[in-house]
Amino acid sequence: MKKYLAEFLGTFTLVLFGCGAAVLAGDRIGSLGIALAFGFAFTAMAYGIGPLSGCHLNPAVSLGMYTAGRMTGKDLGSYIIAQLLGAIAGAAVLLLIATGHLGGYDLAARGLGQNGWGDNYGGEYNIAAAIVFEFIASLLFVIVFLGATQAGVPTELAGVAIGIALTGFYLVGLPLTGASLNPARSLGPALFAGGRAISQLWLFLVVPSIAGIVSGWLYRSGILAKEHVRPRVTEVPEQQPMT
Amino acid sequence: MKKYLAEFLGTFTLVLFGCGAAVLAGDRIGSLGIALAFGFAFTAMAYGIGPLSGCHLNPAVSLGMYTAGRMTGKDLGSYIIAQLLGAIAGAAVLLLIATGHLGGYDLAARGLGQNGWGDNYGGEYNIAAAIVFEFIASLLFVIVFLGATQAGVPTELAGVAIGIALTGFYLVGLPLTGASLNPARSLGPALFAGGRAISQLWLFLVVPSIAGIVSGWLYRSGILAKEHVRPRVTEVPEQQPMT
Amino acid sequence: MKKYLAEFLGTFTLVLFGCGAAVLAGDRIGSLGIALAFGFAFTAMAYGIGPLSGCHLNPAVSLGMYTAGRMTGKDLGSYIIAQLLGAIAGAAVLLLIATGHLGGYDLAARGLGQNGWGDNYGGEYNIAAAIVFEFIASLLFVIVFLGATQAGVPTELAGVAIGIALTGFYLVGLPLTGASLNPARSLGPALFAGGRAISQLWLFLVVPSIAGIVSGWLYRSGILAKEHVRPRVTEVPEQQPMT
Amino acid sequence: MKKYLAEFLGTFTLVLFGCGAAVLAGDRIGSLGIALAFGFAFTAMAYGIGPLSGCHLNPAVSLGMYTAGRMTGKDLGSYIIAQLLGAIAGAAVLLLIATGHLGGYDLAARGLGQNGWGDNYGGEYNIAAAIVFEFIASLLFVIVFLGATQAGVPTELAGVAIGIALTGFYLVGLPLTGASLNPARSLGPALFAGGRAISQLWLFLVVPSIAGIVSGWLYRSGILAKEHVRPRVTEVPEQQPMT
Repeated sequence: MKKYLAEFLGTFTLVLFGCGAAVLAGDRIGSLGIALAFGFAFTAMAYGIGPLSGCHLNPAVSLGMYTAGRMTGKDLGSYIIAQLLGAIAGAAVLLLIATGHLGGYDLAARGLGQNGWGDNYGGEYNIAAAIVFEFIASLLFVIVFLGATQAGVPTELAGVAIGIALTGFYLVGLPLTGASLNPARSLGPALFAGGRAISQLWLFLVVPSIAGIVSGWLYRSGILAKEHVRPRVTEVPEQQPMT
Repeated sequence: MKKYLAEFLGTFTLVLFGCGAAVLAGDRIGSLGIALAFGFAFTAMAYGIGPLSGCHLNPAVSLGMYTAGRMTGKDLGSYIIAQLLGAIAGAAVLLLIATGHLGGYDLAARGLGQNGWGDNYGGEYNIAAAIVFEFIASLLFVIVFLGATQAGVPTELAGVAIGIALTGFYLVGLPLTGASLNPARSLGPALFAGGRAISQLWLFLVVPSIAGIVSGWLYRSGILAKEHVRPRVTEVPEQQPMT
Repeated sequence: MKKYLAEFLGTFTLVLFGCGAAVLAGDRIGSLGIALAFGFAFTAMAYGIGPLSGCHLNPAVSLGMYTAGRMTGKDLGSYIIAQLLGAIAGAAVLLLIATGHLGGYDLAARGLGQNGWGDNYGGEYNIAAAIVFEFIASLLFVIVFLGATQAGVPTELAGVAIGIALTGFYLVGLPLTGASLNPARSLGPALFAGGRAISQLWLFLVVPSIAGIVSGWLYRSGILAKEHVRPRVTEVPEQQPMT
Repeated sequence: MKKYLAEFLGTFTLVLFGCGAAVLAGDRIGSLGIALAFGFAFTAMAYGIGPLSGCHLNPAVSLGMYTAGRMTGKDLGSYIIAQLLGAIAGAAVLLLIATGHLGGYDLAARGLGQNGWGDNYGGEYNIAAAIVFEFIASLLFVIVFLGATQAGVPTELAGVAIGIALTGFYLVGLPLTGASLNPARSLGPALFAGGRAISQLWLFLVVPSIAGIVSGWLYRSGILAKEHVRPRVTEVPEQQPMT
């Protein structure tokens, strides 16, 4: 169970501090600060709870891991549920904090860091740009994740490298879609923001997930794997509490 | 003794350069620069004096370490005293430098990087937002600290990961409370700033400390520990000077 | 073949996200954000596809590796082709995304992150400054690359260090030449931007390449090599897909 | 000899890109970008030429290493000469590039990234603030350097940690003194800037040097050393070129 709790806590942190940077501090730290907050929240949790769950924090990553043959179907389902719940909880706490503003918080006007595209969203790009960006960036992000954590590679730096990838890709994607690459990160804020965030949510659920599966296949098939071994599909071992 | 000196020096550095970034350079580097200065000061000392003391620099971290069964009560008390003294010394030196401004330094108006909340403080959030933020951010920060340094995990990157966590959480918290997560970091500047910084100080002493204890319990109980072993409560070994 | 695919993907990523940061987000993140995006894209791929190809992503680096006796002539040619194709593909996708702007995208006016110098380019420096900067920065960049990955040195951090070098050098070079140090990074955007970007392209093909060769010679001759051994010129081993 | 060449190249890089960030790009990247450029230039060279010389790039660091009993007097002298020459060469190349500005370069007005204090320098602080900052920041910087590279400590991350320390301390010091902590970094630009930069140069030669010696003594005496062993004063081994 502790690995699912770890995914919950990690995704909670990613949404609370990533989206929180946009909502609470965006006028001070700008897009550079927001992109760093997302990447730093990931890296922090990679070393904090990564030893328990591998720190996916993202259904697209878990789908890639599953497709690559590196986690079981049971874990896949449980990881995704934990991630979605964590993201929702993170968005809820963010809203709670935001409403503590003495001048009040206009959720409809300022949002909750949700993703989107089109008129009056970010830099105003069309849906084609949104799909191309989310697909390619998610594909590459999951490639970096799977490549940096694969067998036969020293993995101490993986948590740093993946956080850096997230920040680097968010720097470009924030004006396009608010940058998702992660269905959970999109779901949490959208549930509370409602309206257009909900009607545009499908793209951020579907596109990164497909990209994650493609990335997983690139490793499963051996095309990008350093050492092509028949993957051992094993459940992540569970540590038992002391009795 | 050298481990206590290390905690003194490390907390001194954290306050001098973290709060110093706000006081002396905040108009140039903004909230992003201030958050980086806190995290970078931590990481620098993690590799500089971490080999001696583990680089807690924060009573909430030491309380978490103690609760997790990873340090003795004697060390806990001595670490906290060293941290508080280091923070006070860091704030004193910062004030000394600030008063070297040729145009004079208006301490009452510009402060010393102290924490707070409410009217005319940062982004103006209420006490509930302050408590929620400080509790959750401190809880997660100490989780990252304990997780990244726990037994059975490669710890070379811990100093980088914890500094990144500090910066990431500060990016969000600066508008809310000035971002503490650390009773020592709050105490030092408040003693010199006085007034409201003192009357609001209790929150930054109490909330991060409780959060640190909860985080420690999460590891002590095995809920978040990778390898749940009965912790060996041992004093940090003391290196003897050459005689 | 997978090592060539890795170089293609890596250089694609470097151009799409590095130049993309300038084109799509430059007005938000500034030169600091652009320089970080280039370095972060490199570091991400160093851990993502570095295990396959060594993550050169730059013909100047490959020329340095070849001159230093660390890759074969066959690999040199194939790496450079893969890098150039990757950079062209990255620039093409960037243009595709940019044209998704609802207000249209004026390629002639805004460019595609191409390099250049002189009137109406960046900070407006002359060709001598451009040559001196590109030569010295490329020389040092390839020295860092070859030094951090040489035999007898722990290389886990190389991907971080080289990305940091790229960002550090780009911070200075963006006003001068838009910062290249990399013939592939210059070629991709120039092909689509056309005009002056093409007529000035020669400098960014020639100068970094010469610098890379000189850096390689400094290691080949033993002047900068930690352990001067007669290099074993071996082909990068190819992993075979599972059959 | 190659270790001296390494120190020359490293200090050259530190000054060219650190001061270059201020002179050529400061209006774009601000103090945050300048501080990052200094730290990133250091970290790049730590992995590039650190395997040859240890990457001091700073007479205060070499004085600390010597005092701590970790380098010979012969190496100390040669390192410092190489560092000073590297800094002068870096400043010379920076001036050469700066004069390539199509609008001309007014050296007297814009300087070359030299250090100073007082009226019309940075944030305008008095000499006491300058001395306190330079002494304490240099002391802590050399403590970080010596601590992160000492015997009995994993040193793979030292190059990252020291670069982070440099950036963190520069963030605070830029308004005070332009941030030195390094006699070589101050000498190079001052020689070309002349005038007040020369008359104020003594502080940046003397204060960091004394601080470096004090830091070295803290390790030599065992006060801050993790493992207090009688240091073996040995010359850095010289690799011979292949004959």
